[in-house]
Amino acid sequence: MTTGLPFDDFRNLMRELPARDEAAAAKVRTQFQQMRKPAGSLGRIEEIAEWLAAWTGRPPAVTRPLVAIFAGNHGVARHNISPRQQDATAEMVESCAAGGAAINQICVAYDLGLKVFDLALHLPTADITQEAALDERGCAATMAFGMEAIAGGADLIAIGDLGVGNSTVAAAILAALYGGSGKDWVGPGSGAGPDMIARKAAAVDAALALHGRNLKDPFEVLRRVGGREFAAIAGAILAARMQKVAIVLDGFAALAAAAVLHAVNPAALDHCLVAHVSTEPGHAKVIERLGLDPVLDLKLAHGEATGAGLAVGIVKAAALVHSGMAATL
Amino acid sequence: MTTGLPFDDFRNLMRELPARDEAAAAKVRTQFQQMRKPAGSLGRIEEIAEWLAAWTGRPPAVTRPLVAIFAGNHGVARHNISPRQQDATAEMVESCAAGGAAINQICVAYDLGLKVFDLALHLPTADITQEAALDERGCAATMAFGMEAIAGGADLIAIGDLGVGNSTVAAAILAALYGGSGKDWVGPGSGAGPDMIARKAAAVDAALALHGRNLKDPFEVLRRVGGREFAAIAGAILAARMQKVAIVLDGFAALAAAAVLHAVNPAALDHCLVAHVSTEPGHAKVIERLGLDPVLDLKLAHGEATGAGLAVGIVKAAALVHSGMAATL
Repeated sequence: MTTGLPFDDFRNLMRELPARDEAAAAKVRTQFQQMRKPAGSLGRIEEIAEWLAAWTGRPPAVTRPLVAIFAGNHGVARHNISPRQQDATAEMVESCAAGGAAINQICVAYDLGLKVFDLALHLPTADITQEAALDERGCAATMAFGMEAIAGGADLIAIGDLGVGNSTVAAAILAALYGGSGKDWVGPGSGAGPDMIARKAAAVDAALALHGRNLKDPFEVLRRVGGREFAAIAGAILAARMQKVAIVLDGFAALAAAAVLHAVNPAALDHCLVAHVSTEPGHAKVIERLGLDPVLDLKLAHGEATGAGLAVGIVKAAALVHSGMAATL
Repeated sequence: MTTGLPFDDFRNLMRELPARDEAAAAKVRTQFQQMRKPAGSLGRIEEIAEWLAAWTGRPPAVTRPLVAIFAGNHGVARHNISPRQQDATAEMVESCAAGGAAINQICVAYDLGLKVFDLALHLPTADITQEAALDERGCAATMAFGMEAIAGGADLIAIGDLGVGNSTVAAAILAALYGGSGKDWVGPGSGAGPDMIARKAAAVDAALALHGRNLKDPFEVLRRVGGREFAAIAGAILAARMQKVAIVLDGFAALAAAAVLHAVNPAALDHCLVAHVSTEPGHAKVIERLGLDPVLDLKLAHGEATGAGLAVGIVKAAALVHSGMAATL
């Protein structure tokens, strides 16, 4: 089934991921130890500052933070699995462009840049219950797009998603990677009731039944039961690692995309901070599977990188706490 | 024992606390419902915006946020109950004044004002294991100082504390209010080991034994086993309520001071948000007793309003999310 060719560059990159900069991390640790305060008293603020240094190779600083939102549409949405019509994805993208979305205000609050990437919204992926969402070439091209998307000098990138139906797709990816059936991974998403949640589970189960024997390879999971925003997010996470940019991950879809990389190489997300745990039940499950520790728990179910944007506010403060206090040593 | 006179003004104020502005709160709730997004999808961001409106009587806005830190010294510190010498309180105040403390950097991150109130640091309170920390007149005067301290037009106030030995004092207050012995309420504070923690518990037990029969009245708890920063914080919380200013509470000492007011009138803290749960075990216990829900959990054990300052960053974003999105309705 797999030609192996378009994914090969990614497979190669995934084998040679840059490691932590231990010297940069140790310097931050030592500086905190030398400050006139109880050891470790700033808890996660110290941890976040050290993490930032470890993965950027520089003293902790957040001077050009960027929120990157990837938006996609999904053929599987035809199964009445979302309270919102597919047009809502484009409307949400437009709302972000017009400055009227929640994430715009969060960007104002913390002085964050914002880019929203519309991934061929007019051309939804194929219905994963019937065929693969993307062909290998299309999936690889979208990953490459995600890699390019983060270029431009940002030093911290918060990654989120928009996409009607994408919590069902995220559930399919996670069931394929971790086992379980649809009901183990679906949830209310943007407001599904019990009947709709049952349809979400059925769609995941149908996709697993169709693609099951071809889901051993995580990249195949991504193209068969994933979608464009998932592929782009995976590419963006990978590119950030290569370019020494730290990542803050937002919600259920972003974590599902990240989980694909983690399945290829368990070290692939070490440069990523999970912003928050949302109310979507699968979000907490995948965070636990990945062994990550969310910064915030604000009962969000909004997507659109809102949790990630809020967490960047904490990361900015952590960098300033380190640099401001270190300057007095 | 009690003359009743100096505390009487506070007792009277506590009987006539302003209520929520239900109209302002309802307007925020309705506006969120009218936004093009899943109902309640912004979780605590929506709750915080509504809370801000309810207690300020205005559309949610944080334009003049202030961090207020109250610093006191404690006679009980003579029992070797803190890894820090008493001089460290004044040094921490000086560090804040010089801009080198963690809270200064957090204020830079979120553009917060900062005031640090030195409450007669050269004159520690009396040792609570031997006598009352303060006489009634001194306690009432310090509460009045706290009430004055928040004047000046701030529209959101984050309240924190500094004071070598004050986690022992906080434990004594909470044991007096809620029962239990010293060991139920003490913890590592700024880094106590097991022997020091045992001395902290013994100091609390000695204070309870000495003052026990006089601890029925919460104001008597405050003056007998409390201290100046506790009295000032109680006054500041009360004044904010009268002046329609919302409060963000920081750590264990601030919560113990707040618990005194709550014991007088269970509605007294309805205008307060608890910023975070720290690593001090008693902090989580008092938060649970008060039925409050902390915004953050960042494993802080630092005091100095650091958690409160970080939470104000979230509150600022919540106000902006509401106002920015409402403007597009």
